[in-house]
Amino acid sequence: MNEHMPLTLADWHAAYRGGASPADLLGALARRLADGPREAWIHRATADEVGTQAAALEARLAATAADPAGRAALWQALPLFGVPFAVKDNIDVAGAPTTAACPAFSHVAGRHAVPVQRLLDAGAVWMGKTNLDQFATGLVGARSPYGRPASTFDASRVSGGSSSGSAVVAARGDVAFSLGTDTAGSGRVPAGFNNIVGLKPTPGRVSTTGVVPACRSLDCVSVFALTVEDAAAVLAVMEGPDADDAYSRFEPGPARLPARLRIGVPMTPVLDATHAAAWPPAVAQAQRQGHEIVPIDFAPLHAVAQLLYGGPWVAERHAAVQALLEQSPEALDPTVRTVVEQAVGMTATDAFRGQYTLRAAQQGAAALWQQVDVLMVPTAPGHPTFAQVDADPIGANSRLGTYTNFVNLLGWCALALPAGFTEGGLPFGVTFIAPGNADAALAHFGAGWQAALALPLGATDVPYPGAPAQRGGWPAAEPTMPIAVVGAHLSGMPLNGQLTERSATLRAATTTAPHYKLYALPNTTPPKPGLQRVAEGGAAIAVEVWNVPLKHVGSFLALIPAPLGLGSLELADGTQVHGFICEGHALAAATDVTAFGGWRAYIADMKARSAPR
Amino acid sequence: MNEHMPLTLADWHAAYRGGASPADLLGALARRLADGPREAWIHRATADEVGTQAAALEARLAATAADPAGRAALWQALPLFGVPFAVKDNIDVAGAPTTAACPAFSHVAGRHAVPVQRLLDAGAVWMGKTNLDQFATGLVGARSPYGRPASTFDASRVSGGSSSGSAVVAARGDVAFSLGTDTAGSGRVPAGFNNIVGLKPTPGRVSTTGVVPACRSLDCVSVFALTVEDAAAVLAVMEGPDADDAYSRFEPGPARLPARLRIGVPMTPVLDATHAAAWPPAVAQAQRQGHEIVPIDFAPLHAVAQLLYGGPWVAERHAAVQALLEQSPEALDPTVRTVVEQAVGMTATDAFRGQYTLRAAQQGAAALWQQVDVLMVPTAPGHPTFAQVDADPIGANSRLGTYTNFVNLLGWCALALPAGFTEGGLPFGVTFIAPGNADAALAHFGAGWQAALALPLGATDVPYPGAPAQRGGWPAAEPTMPIAVVGAHLSGMPLNGQLTERSATLRAATTTAPHYKLYALPNTTPPKPGLQRVAEGGAAIAVEVWNVPLKHVGSFLALIPAPLGLGSLELADGTQVHGFICEGHALAAATDVTAFGGWRAYIADMKARSAPR
Repeated sequence: MNEHMPLTLADWHAAYRGGASPADLLGALARRLADGPREAWIHRATADEVGTQAAALEARLAATAADPAGRAALWQALPLFGVPFAVKDNIDVAGAPTTAACPAFSHVAGRHAVPVQRLLDAGAVWMGKTNLDQFATGLVGARSPYGRPASTFDASRVSGGSSSGSAVVAARGDVAFSLGTDTAGSGRVPAGFNNIVGLKPTPGRVSTTGVVPACRSLDCVSVFALTVEDAAAVLAVMEGPDADDAYSRFEPGPARLPARLRIGVPMTPVLDATHAAAWPPAVAQAQRQGHEIVPIDFAPLHAVAQLLYGGPWVAERHAAVQALLEQSPEALDPTVRTVVEQAVGMTATDAFRGQYTLRAAQQGAAALWQQVDVLMVPTAPGHPTFAQVDADPIGANSRLGTYTNFVNLLGWCALALPAGFTEGGLPFGVTFIAPGNADAALAHFGAGWQAALALPLGATDVPYPGAPAQRGGWPAAEPTMPIAVVGAHLSGMPLNGQLTERSATLRAATTTAPHYKLYALPNTTPPKPGLQRVAEGGAAIAVEVWNVPLKHVGSFLALIPAPLGLGSLELADGTQVHGFICEGHALAAATDVTAFGGWRAYIADMKARSAPR
Repeated sequence: MNEHMPLTLADWHAAYRGGASPADLLGALARRLADGPREAWIHRATADEVGTQAAALEARLAATAADPAGRAALWQALPLFGVPFAVKDNIDVAGAPTTAACPAFSHVAGRHAVPVQRLLDAGAVWMGKTNLDQFATGLVGARSPYGRPASTFDASRVSGGSSSGSAVVAARGDVAFSLGTDTAGSGRVPAGFNNIVGLKPTPGRVSTTGVVPACRSLDCVSVFALTVEDAAAVLAVMEGPDADDAYSRFEPGPARLPARLRIGVPMTPVLDATHAAAWPPAVAQAQRQGHEIVPIDFAPLHAVAQLLYGGPWVAERHAAVQALLEQSPEALDPTVRTVVEQAVGMTATDAFRGQYTLRAAQQGAAALWQQVDVLMVPTAPGHPTFAQVDADPIGANSRLGTYTNFVNLLGWCALALPAGFTEGGLPFGVTFIAPGNADAALAHFGAGWQAALALPLGATDVPYPGAPAQRGGWPAAEPTMPIAVVGAHLSGMPLNGQLTERSATLRAATTTAPHYKLYALPNTTPPKPGLQRVAEGGAAIAVEVWNVPLKHVGSFLALIPAPLGLGSLELADGTQVHGFICEGHALAAATDVTAFGGWRAYIADMKARSAPR
């Protein structure tokens, strides 16, 4: 269905770089959306709304038509130039109504929500507001007076919610990406039911200013896309502090997870009969990638999950809609109303007691990250039909949150990924969960997962295109310092652990510029070399450059004894990096081993000589 | 009144090192306590309870009687050997009743509270449980069926609460220190009314396991002592993580505040007529110490303070006593009951709304630390009589919290200090408030404040003894790395700001061992030296050793260009520290300036030569 329309960010970028007109392309897209599934949308952007945005982009193009440098700067400044996206209808787009799937709540937003503003500032084009479980209260996507979006793979089954419409339009390739929100799992479950990527950032990483609250203290803006690279690029644009959002908290974490992960999985996974057979192959896939599987008792996490709807947190939902509920209770979806009204009669004392319980659980759950690096779970235990949801609206919904509800309460991030199909042909999704602030590292892992599986994109039948030649933006990670190591810190050498235990990652194996001599220092344990820059007679010496988190450089330096230190080295490509240097006085009694070209070759030679013949 | 009894920790240590017997000394003390003000205590340790503790210490002494090394190890292992202390009666001491000043609540504790356990493990001896505002709900100290402790300076005035008894016995020197708890200001106001030190740690720094909650999420165990050094030594023993306390959070911060502080003070201080004249001299004292006074609008902080009793946090107090309140409402002090019953009817929705308000206020208040390094406030606006409190129990109490109520809600630490006397002869206290985790730095500042004022200790008439010759334990600070700087990073030199902006502090000005040459490197801006270790012909070169927070060493190294680096230097005293080294190749073209003995002397000489004659 997308033959003539770009799909991924790379496709859209390529189209514009190739000369496509935003007005033409986006105008055609808007007309096509009019024919798409009506129930996915609450409001489709009008021809005017699309045209105004396209015209602004056309003007930017025109201004740089004869100015290649200006054009290049334009692509740089607007990383999402002309990329169409959809917005869940509990997120404000200025001038458009925000309904939260409740007509009585509908009002025209005066300002863009902060994440929407950042996307528009990056050149993205909003194409409409999507359907959802009313007030984002649900995981089925069926609690809406604006229709019930079906899974793009089975019209008899739910799309998942609450971000139902956003998932459907992303899976169809009707937009390049879409925004959801995620409190209980609303940015993950619909991804699982539509074979797409659902990126749920760490709470606070993306501002929720301009988002209708579900649970104000837990809500996250999430991203649906066809590829992890695209979702990551979108997060990179949206993330960052917001002084107007009291829950904003932007603390970038590691850039990479360890190469060989310890992956925690449920000891006894909860899965419907239809989905049980899809899980073991997914776990096997993780093992094939070289990771270790660690069965974990999920009971403490399920206990945390219970707090979300069984504890005082429903009072947050109540706080969001109290006025409407009291004035026009009939305006609410009956199921949503039943959920929210649980809060009536809950006391402030109950609320604090619930928080004591959560706080204790958080301390316990944090210890989990000593055992494993990430968790891997089925995104949902099964995939109910509309009929099953109608028969038990709260029970069927509740079961869908089995592996999602606890995540935001614990401050973690998560990435829902396609993992194949059930015997019945339904998409099967898995979710990887990481500690708070590990968003960038988790996305990096997820991109590798998707490349390894290479499944068709969403519901499009378009094959996985491979990782883009040029990666777009990426979520921020904590700063690192590249440090060139020469001797005992090289991979496999005795002190390499001093790097890996500081979460340092190998950036490159290369050599110095050809201006160095290498010496074996006497009386060092383990044996250590000293590197000396020389005016003449130098050689290129093998080094490894490791990215060391800046905050850990001090404790690394603390381990380095005289006569060694950290200064600057010139690499083969002429760049300077920090790395091991050696005081000159210590080289007088040292052995020149420059001829070996590196410490590893010298050590290998030493071992060969000392081995029995 | 304390002629024959040690007062400070140093006094107690000296007595035992001089051969005093714990059994004799503590036995005598117990007998003396029996004659002290009855209303300060709820339970005085029995002769048996004191005797058992003393006997254990005697046994430790006997076991090391002929073993000087063992004896030295004993002093080291038990830093509070034989030091008597009092425990507020909402903190558990195993085997003794905990009443929280409510007879109906009384029960014999099965285990020591964690901080008590740590003190006993360090050799301290508990002498009794002290009176308090019932359930620690009050700042007057008069809400107790066990009597109303008076200020040690005026029998007609309150002692301050809720930790009333603990403050009184510490001010009298009846114990070396005492434990309070502080939710709204209970560890500070009584210090102000009794001319003693009240140390209120950062929330979470000291475990509250075994403490009867007031507001579980805000409660802090606090210390009263006659000197800051003593309070700090006690905190050093008690602090640290506790896996059983969900609110435990131990994250040591800076060791030192900047030398010249920006001190925020209330723009329009709230003070009673009796106390107004005492405030300006206290502020002037801070200025005399070289600090800058910055008037601050306290309105946002007062708004936070309102949440504690005017918002949902009273529901935490309700959560703590709900069962008793429902079964035997008459068991509660009428005023305490009035306060706690405000929670009845507060909804969970109200509780979350209050937290939204707090969260937003926290973000705003955090920005305050861009403007100032610490806040300085009157510990209380005035000092009411019992008659005034009786006339308006809630109003008089509420006013006392003007400068204390907001601190724990914002996660900060505070230190209440004596600051002189009012015209009427009442003690006047000030409180310094610092960001969370700055406890060690704040105590260091406070020790200097107390030494500068040199007021008599508490209510004892004993003059301030000066800082102890040997300082005891000190609260933990974040790790630092001593780094020896040689050239442009020296105090007053162009790059010194690279150290101070990283919160580095000068540890020592010294020289290297006499094994170095100093060179002026050509073509460096600003001019930089290179230090070279040599086998012969070296000299001692002037260096400064700076303590750089370990987490900032990486960003400091990032600023250091070739040919310089951070390695190891040998100092005059033979110790090695990390510091500036230089690659040998760069010294070939450099000028030997060793004869100047240091970079500062060389630069001074250069400037003198270039100056017009």
